[in-house]
Amino acid sequence: MAPTLVANGDTVKSSVTSRLASVYSEVQNSRLDHALPLPSVLKKPFKLVDGPRSSAAGNPDGIAKLFPCLFGQPSAMLVPESAGFGLGQNLKIGVVLSGGQAPGGHNVISGIFDYLQDRCKGSTLYGFKGGPAGIMKCKYVVLTSEYIYPYRNQGGFDMICSGRDKIETPEQFKQAEETALKLDLDGIVVIGGDDSNTNACLLAENFRSKNMKTHVIGCPKTIDGDLKCKEVPTSFGFDTACKIYAEMIGNVMIDARSTGKYYHFVRLMGRAASHITLECALQTHPNITLIGEEVAAKKQTLKNVTDYIADVICKRVKLGYNYGVILVPEGLIDFIPEVQLLIAELNEILAHDVVDEGGLWKKKLKDQSLQLFELLPPAIQEQLMLERDPHGNVQVAKIETEKMLIQMVETELEQRKQKGAYKGQFKGQSHFFGYEGRCGLPSNFDSTYCYALGYAAGALLHGGKTGLISSVGNLAAPVEKWTVGGTALTSLMDVERRHGKFKPVIKKAMVELEGAPFKKLASMREEWALKNRYISPGPIQFVGPASDSVNHTLLLELGVQA
Amino acid sequence: MAPTLVANGDTVKSSVTSRLASVYSEVQNSRLDHALPLPSVLKKPFKLVDGPRSSAAGNPDGIAKLFPCLFGQPSAMLVPESAGFGLGQNLKIGVVLSGGQAPGGHNVISGIFDYLQDRCKGSTLYGFKGGPAGIMKCKYVVLTSEYIYPYRNQGGFDMICSGRDKIETPEQFKQAEETALKLDLDGIVVIGGDDSNTNACLLAENFRSKNMKTHVIGCPKTIDGDLKCKEVPTSFGFDTACKIYAEMIGNVMIDARSTGKYYHFVRLMGRAASHITLECALQTHPNITLIGEEVAAKKQTLKNVTDYIADVICKRVKLGYNYGVILVPEGLIDFIPEVQLLIAELNEILAHDVVDEGGLWKKKLKDQSLQLFELLPPAIQEQLMLERDPHGNVQVAKIETEKMLIQMVETELEQRKQKGAYKGQFKGQSHFFGYEGRCGLPSNFDSTYCYALGYAAGALLHGGKTGLISSVGNLAAPVEKWTVGGTALTSLMDVERRHGKFKPVIKKAMVELEGAPFKKLASMREEWALKNRYISPGPIQFVGPASDSVNHTLLLELGVQA
Repeated sequence: MAPTLVANGDTVKSSVTSRLASVYSEVQNSRLDHALPLPSVLKKPFKLVDGPRSSAAGNPDGIAKLFPCLFGQPSAMLVPESAGFGLGQNLKIGVVLSGGQAPGGHNVISGIFDYLQDRCKGSTLYGFKGGPAGIMKCKYVVLTSEYIYPYRNQGGFDMICSGRDKIETPEQFKQAEETALKLDLDGIVVIGGDDSNTNACLLAENFRSKNMKTHVIGCPKTIDGDLKCKEVPTSFGFDTACKIYAEMIGNVMIDARSTGKYYHFVRLMGRAASHITLECALQTHPNITLIGEEVAAKKQTLKNVTDYIADVICKRVKLGYNYGVILVPEGLIDFIPEVQLLIAELNEILAHDVVDEGGLWKKKLKDQSLQLFELLPPAIQEQLMLERDPHGNVQVAKIETEKMLIQMVETELEQRKQKGAYKGQFKGQSHFFGYEGRCGLPSNFDSTYCYALGYAAGALLHGGKTGLISSVGNLAAPVEKWTVGGTALTSLMDVERRHGKFKPVIKKAMVELEGAPFKKLASMREEWALKNRYISPGPIQFVGPASDSVNHTLLLELGVQA
Repeated sequence: MAPTLVANGDTVKSSVTSRLASVYSEVQNSRLDHALPLPSVLKKPFKLVDGPRSSAAGNPDGIAKLFPCLFGQPSAMLVPESAGFGLGQNLKIGVVLSGGQAPGGHNVISGIFDYLQDRCKGSTLYGFKGGPAGIMKCKYVVLTSEYIYPYRNQGGFDMICSGRDKIETPEQFKQAEETALKLDLDGIVVIGGDDSNTNACLLAENFRSKNMKTHVIGCPKTIDGDLKCKEVPTSFGFDTACKIYAEMIGNVMIDARSTGKYYHFVRLMGRAASHITLECALQTHPNITLIGEEVAAKKQTLKNVTDYIADVICKRVKLGYNYGVILVPEGLIDFIPEVQLLIAELNEILAHDVVDEGGLWKKKLKDQSLQLFELLPPAIQEQLMLERDPHGNVQVAKIETEKMLIQMVETELEQRKQKGAYKGQFKGQSHFFGYEGRCGLPSNFDSTYCYALGYAAGALLHGGKTGLISSVGNLAAPVEKWTVGGTALTSLMDVERRHGKFKPVIKKAMVELEGAPFKKLASMREEWALKNRYISPGPIQFVGPASDSVNHTLLLELGVQA
């Protein structure tokens, strides 16, 4: 029996979980009973049909060596079949959340749970607490209908929490085996990003190599949107996060236009790939959108980027616009080759030399790095020198890129002004949109997508599969037509040399400069730069107009005009 | 004929305004035709009934001297009257937006316009561009149905834009008179905050003293919520901004609970009063809420504030919570007396003395100020010394209060750790929610409230009133029962000495420590500090659950349990 949660003001009495002790807003409450449609194939009996033997994304020989049991196994599709496979089998399944949060994680778990309830009555679902460490330490909670209910369609990962530990050493694999044996596990579902899914596959390989019955299925999670491929068109959380950011950006745009005197530099979460920034640009039409992958491909310097922004600002002032909105991906400077060089040299110097007040140490920098260092605003220079991680390394992640750009653009425009090439008054405003997006309540799309991913993971385990990633496709179509299956994790992998060892990796999906989403941006950005085509999407996660729309990136990648 | 705006992808062709050239999202589009209910009294014929002679909020003799024509005039209420006052009178009215943006400004203008269309067919509404400067320079646009349509229920002030100029010198009054004469104005509606409404009254007094027919009516605008009194229960924009901030805070709370390792310090807009922070706390239940007015009343030092936060963090770690959410009003440090002293001394020293590298200059600080200065994190010390305004003054506004607090709490906890009094791992995350709230699309409440304010302003001018502020009351009741009238601006005023001159001021309404909203917070904060009662309101501006709810502050102040 599900507990009744009530709105604002009343506290639900229960000691089961922290959520049950919390107060829910009307929206949170209404989301609890939000109906989730399932793809048709999941609603009736089905069977699993294997595809052809698979290979790897790169270096198949290397992957074959690293995954001797699993390499080459086919992907599987669910297809309707009146016989289907047997109901009534009791399964013991564990589920774990791995890495950073993304809206929808709770729905994946709900989906697994409901699959087991619907198809394998009497099964047990264990929620491993605090990420993969929970598997190793056998820290878990038995997930029941009552336990899960308050998390349905809710944001966050707090049902079982997450963690960043990895199961990778022989001792750790041993611990995982002990847990699997102790709980008599038929399967584990790992909900995570590229690294976590790689590890899920290693775990699957390990269990298989020991002839254990425990299977492992992955699920694609990350707001960054950089875990995707043909069979897995998007990772969950991306849709919600982008919609939340885009609403805020749209508001800032109205402010920019009304006030008429600020350039808003908006930094957006997403350290590795710039998908979030690109998607938000497609939703809101900012004047300038910086895409890390483009900066890298064109081997741009920080000066190039600064000049590009300053150029647009100069053109706009001639049109009478002394304001604008600029989107900056969090990881921008990681994409700039000269910055990487500077950082490497600084790390070397800071590790071995005395940094004298007079600045003689700078002579140890190579010419290009010295020039770049001198170009940086003093506050950033200081940050680079002072804030270091426990290993003494410069902390690039701590640099507030949008503030650095504001200062650099300000300096550049000041110089242009003195030469008479710029007559405006530049004022920058910085913003960072991050945490508020990764823990929002999942959008209708993410709610439904995650539920299907979880339900599919249940089906794959029920069908005896291992080493697959839950794959729900045809996402531009109505939900009933979505396809469901599992993709061989080894088929997504390549080999990379890390710390002198060959490691399997699922390569992060970066923004493709030849892909439809970037090409759409590229085709529009001249117009967006000089004319003001701002769009304010408003809040569109749940109800009202556009609440069932899907993000532009996904639609464009699927060949649908967004 | 209203232009047809279309969703995402198509551009409306028109050269009338920038909005007509822009692309609207589905939400923006749907808001255009959002129906706005009017209070019953505005739907049928009515008359204006004067109340008793008014006085002033303070120093009535002083106010009487400053407003010889207007002082003492009664407030007015609209009451149903079958005869009503005459239809068909052609009026020439100007409207101006003054000061910072607040969601709903466009609806006030729509309300005035629709009143004139409904009751004074053939009237003209002039929109003065760029704030009060538009009045002085006679820069305006004639507002038509087509011009206004794309701004209905939309955020921002870009229909006619705003400005911060004041009409206060004899020359400036002369310019305003010339504009009023040139356009043959019957009235001007000034949409603004406390200062702008004071100036509206001075303008009304000036016109009256010159026997001009031009009347002036004010409207209460500010997201800060600090322009309010018995007759004007809230200023517009506050409701929307708080709902937007509260959604983001609610998301951050889910993140805090899921991640379990961060203290999120959220700075919220609102420099003078802490109403926004208080309202957001009531909506979301954070662990710590700092209210500037309380800090001032208790004469707290920065160390006291730091200790308070550190105390809660220490208590929470004993309960197993190594995370939390803390709300900080933007203007916090302005409320701390010792900080004000330090700033004053620094300004004096920086103006007259050489600041030596060795720090000998610090000897000029008084003991208390020196202690405080040494307590500040180095980055803040530097900011105080380096970033100064054109007059050479220290820029308190530039200090990122939430970051300063994080550093101070970190230092304090480090000391406690060394003494064994704290065993947690403190990690602070800073956030600032500001611009994204002040320009959102107005909530249902603000949309309706603003429309009524504007409609009422039209009625007051039609009824021959001047020097009143449009007043819509009984806001906890359904819209049809809202009361409508105008309050004598002089009755809200007091006299303050500024720069050696006596000036009339509408005192900012600060958070009342004896008021119901603060008392509610005070009664709950022990529980919210130690237990996690987080609420995530979600997006509730327009549709779905809670979209017609009113903010807690207003309800509590009206004696309704929120």
